[in-house]
Amino acid sequence: MAWSPRRSAGRRLQLPLLCLLLQGATAILFAIFVRYNRETDAALWHWGNHSDADNEFYFRYPSFQDVHVMIFVGFGFLMVFLQRYGFGSVGFTFLLAAFALQWSTLIQGFFHSFRGGYILVGVESMINADFCAGAVLISFGAILGKTGPVQLLLMALLEVVLFGLNEFVLLSLLEVKDAGGSMTIHTFGAYFGLILSRVLYRPQLEKSKHRQGSVYHSDLFAMIGTIFLWIFWPSFNSAPTALGDGQHRTALNTYYSLTASTLSTFALSALVGGDGRLDMVHVQNAALAGGVVVGTSAEMMLTPFGALAAGFLAGAISTLGYKFFTPILESKLKVQDTCGVHNLHGMPGVLGALLGVLVAGLATHEAYGDGAPAEAAHPGLPARRPVL
Amino acid sequence: MAWSPRRSAGRRLQLPLLCLLLQGATAILFAIFVRYNRETDAALWHWGNHSDADNEFYFRYPSFQDVHVMIFVGFGFLMVFLQRYGFGSVGFTFLLAAFALQWSTLIQGFFHSFRGGYILVGVESMINADFCAGAVLISFGAILGKTGPVQLLLMALLEVVLFGLNEFVLLSLLEVKDAGGSMTIHTFGAYFGLILSRVLYRPQLEKSKHRQGSVYHSDLFAMIGTIFLWIFWPSFNSAPTALGDGQHRTALNTYYSLTASTLSTFALSALVGGDGRLDMVHVQNAALAGGVVVGTSAEMMLTPFGALAAGFLAGAISTLGYKFFTPILESKLKVQDTCGVHNLHGMPGVLGALLGVLVAGLATHEAYGDGAPAEAAHPGLPARRPVL
Amino acid sequence: MAWSPRRSAGRRLQLPLLCLLLQGATAILFAIFVRYNRETDAALWHWGNHSDADNEFYFRYPSFQDVHVMIFVGFGFLMVFLQRYGFGSVGFTFLLAAFALQWSTLIQGFFHSFRGGYILVGVESMINADFCAGAVLISFGAILGKTGPVQLLLMALLEVVLFGLNEFVLLSLLEVKDAGGSMTIHTFGAYFGLILSRVLYRPQLEKSKHRQGSVYHSDLFAMIGTIFLWIFWPSFNSAPTALGDGQHRTALNTYYSLTASTLSTFALSALVGGDGRLDMVHVQNAALAGGVVVGTSAEMMLTPFGALAAGFLAGAISTLGYKFFTPILESKLKVQDTCGVHNLHGMPGVLGALLGVLVAGLATHEAYGDGAPAEAAHPGLPARRPVL
Repeated sequence: MAWSPRRSAGRRLQLPLLCLLLQGATAILFAIFVRYNRETDAALWHWGNHSDADNEFYFRYPSFQDVHVMIFVGFGFLMVFLQRYGFGSVGFTFLLAAFALQWSTLIQGFFHSFRGGYILVGVESMINADFCAGAVLISFGAILGKTGPVQLLLMALLEVVLFGLNEFVLLSLLEVKDAGGSMTIHTFGAYFGLILSRVLYRPQLEKSKHRQGSVYHSDLFAMIGTIFLWIFWPSFNSAPTALGDGQHRTALNTYYSLTASTLSTFALSALVGGDGRLDMVHVQNAALAGGVVVGTSAEMMLTPFGALAAGFLAGAISTLGYKFFTPILESKLKVQDTCGVHNLHGMPGVLGALLGVLVAGLATHEAYGDGAPAEAAHPGLPARRPVL
Repeated sequence: MAWSPRRSAGRRLQLPLLCLLLQGATAILFAIFVRYNRETDAALWHWGNHSDADNEFYFRYPSFQDVHVMIFVGFGFLMVFLQRYGFGSVGFTFLLAAFALQWSTLIQGFFHSFRGGYILVGVESMINADFCAGAVLISFGAILGKTGPVQLLLMALLEVVLFGLNEFVLLSLLEVKDAGGSMTIHTFGAYFGLILSRVLYRPQLEKSKHRQGSVYHSDLFAMIGTIFLWIFWPSFNSAPTALGDGQHRTALNTYYSLTASTLSTFALSALVGGDGRLDMVHVQNAALAGGVVVGTSAEMMLTPFGALAAGFLAGAISTLGYKFFTPILESKLKVQDTCGVHNLHGMPGVLGALLGVLVAGLATHEAYGDGAPAEAAHPGLPARRPVL
Repeated sequence: MAWSPRRSAGRRLQLPLLCLLLQGATAILFAIFVRYNRETDAALWHWGNHSDADNEFYFRYPSFQDVHVMIFVGFGFLMVFLQRYGFGSVGFTFLLAAFALQWSTLIQGFFHSFRGGYILVGVESMINADFCAGAVLISFGAILGKTGPVQLLLMALLEVVLFGLNEFVLLSLLEVKDAGGSMTIHTFGAYFGLILSRVLYRPQLEKSKHRQGSVYHSDLFAMIGTIFLWIFWPSFNSAPTALGDGQHRTALNTYYSLTASTLSTFALSALVGGDGRLDMVHVQNAALAGGVVVGTSAEMMLTPFGALAAGFLAGAISTLGYKFFTPILESKLKVQDTCGVHNLHGMPGVLGALLGVLVAGLATHEAYGDGAPAEAAHPGLPARRPVL
């Protein structure tokens, strides 16, 4: 970041002042609105007759921690592949995500867990805030290298609000189910970022394309990100689902889907590679598409075969997207998608939403049984994603 | 991978076609045979009267995730120490393990959880499939750098079947207990890999030995693998054990055993080092032998002292193996054990099996109590490793 | 490590012999004193009428594993930023922590869980031993690069005893509450290390200051450490607290506190940086101060706003400490604090203790409710940190 000497004093203060302003504002809003919920408040929890073992902490905190690793390690290091931008991507991920967690606790709280004038918080609000931070980081991936921390924080300020609004419309008004966020997180984050990337389009960026090159160690760091995302994606999709068989089945389906997207990514990458070589960018990204594509449907009775088929398709489409679609996006639509989020989150997210509609449409009463909640078998009923 | 231009078109298609073929075959078998089990099926779970908190997911999924990290991060990065092969080791680990998870779900399912014509799956089949993938990666460690992805996939295709067969013979027919897989995973994986390495022996590999050298950053990446394996090994051994005290005790014993193998590794490494220096290869590998050696016995009443003693012995033997036995293996038996899996998995695995026999033989009714399952106190009764 | 040729034989044996001696001594003490507790002993657990689901393993083991990652990955890699010392910092972390786990199991056991002549162990003793190892590693951070493994092991031998004594005085005699260890872990570990650093002061170290420089990849490795510490700090503080709302609230408060310390670190770092640039050392360290500062109070009814305010303050103080106080410490007091543990653990730890007094003092019966344990509302009553 070069700037003219005369403006340096002013610009130098931008980041500190923005951080302080945002932190001050969220702190005041926290003081006014945010309170412990029944599971985290000492008096509320000890009122009534139940065991400490019933606290929701024990059912969701391990999954939360896996999601937390994905947001900070996964997304942070996945973007390190841009050699010259390595520390920036990890450092700004850290700043952006930390702010997004606070801000989305407020925004999502107003939309989903506002009770008696207060936003009530616990492990589920932590999971949901992490999800929103995930969407912000997906958008960051589309504009990586084009902008500095001040603009990124302003992006997060806006995006978190739109995320909450979009989620409210989809989950609460349209009563759509989307536990793993195929629509609310991946599709939203990807297209928000792509629109921003179009706005920030700078043709001269092409000239410095060699600076975007990755090197051996950068790629290994990026693989750290990839692998942690791959490992913990079953927890990402299952963290907010219904307890019991719902959470269990979601994790299992996501696990199968990821194995299939990995195989199809290696197959397609070697197939479209000029000389049969694997492209590391495909392996680092498209192999994860299996997690995205079952975000909506993994909670449903997708069947193990359905999970494999969905993952296979997503890995293939994502790999082909990196090979053929990203160059068109840049040359024709002037959208420079630095990390290829359209291929990893955009297309598989849309595919995942369609898959959700399909699986919900095919659902039979028999498959879900008598004891199953009615909405599990029927699309269009209240979302099961618990946001309190 | 260099190849003659004329054959390039054919060879270039080998990997994609093999991936597609294997994925197609497992997908068809999944469609025919694999179904959700009682804990992951909506209708089955909601039939009957029990709490969602009873779902096995909450007892095993956190351990599963730790095992999953070990397989993909641990084994993947541990092998990065070969500088020129860094990305290959992580990338091929990824491909191999993804395929092995699907394939072993089928093979282990046929042997262990085939009910009414269907393979029933849930968190335990996920854990067991990860274990089998672990054995495949141990074998990969023995032949690292000698072969490409096509041969590795074919190796996995064969090894997973033999793994399932060996496990069936040991656990189901001979009714041996081996929760942490000293025999079924470590010993089997190591010797399978060593036999392959003998088959693939190429004398000229010695000449390019300098290419096997590790460098500063490669060693740090390898330490990421080592440390994640070290941290999560208590979960590896305890993931499939009996619930309650069994799982608790297994984790505790493994934790103690690993601290002792670390101390003996540092002691022996400095002792046998030419000038008192520590050898990084020892630290990266032999320090983990404490996890392997208690794989069979950690579930038993090994006692904390017993865990320390076992770990100490394993670390010492493993370090001495790297120093003295690996060179003999190569020069006399023509087995080039790239990662030294004979030292980390082979010898400590055999030692662990013997230790299991000893501890089971010493078991008294008093030590396990009235409430303890009979087989806990007596070897030769049905294995407690639940495979459904 | 250079040494004179004549002494080399003797010095070369120091590390192996010390390791063997220490391991032998702890093994003998384990054989005499350490036994499974009610939750890990087969006979004791199966005696009586309770469900396996009640075993403490399921309430604390996931948190333990997070703490374990922090100790070995977090502290290990955080110190890698010293380029020339990278492998040493990870390797010696490994050795030191492994020994400290065994030794503190004994020392803490004698002080806190000595029943009928035996030290009883289970998941809580694992957590507490990890905490003690954390304090040892904090001290290591103060003297990093100044000493070899033999001296470090001797330091651990002494420090673990003093740690246990200090903890016994604070928690058992003075009946202070300090679940997350603001006092017992962070403040103690920091000042112990700083005193050692003063003792080991060598003026010529300044001359080789350029060797302390960090480089691109070292900083990325250090960020791996930072981020894992940041992610899992909620588990660190909540691992030993009361079950139910206590554990839940502690994690939530720590999570908020960390987001605020991150924002204040970025703000202050950019503000005090000469040209508005962020200092990586601040980001790698001060962003974590939010976890330290709520170590004592996160279990209490701190309120979400209180957590943000505490984290903000800690991040700011810590960043300013790196900028202004560390140079003074070195030039005036001859204390070379290599990793700046005074800024990350020392000052935030003291601040955390004061905050604990404040929050405990402000506690009302109303805030904790009828069902809440009396001591939660009143300072000076028995510590809730369970050490059995």
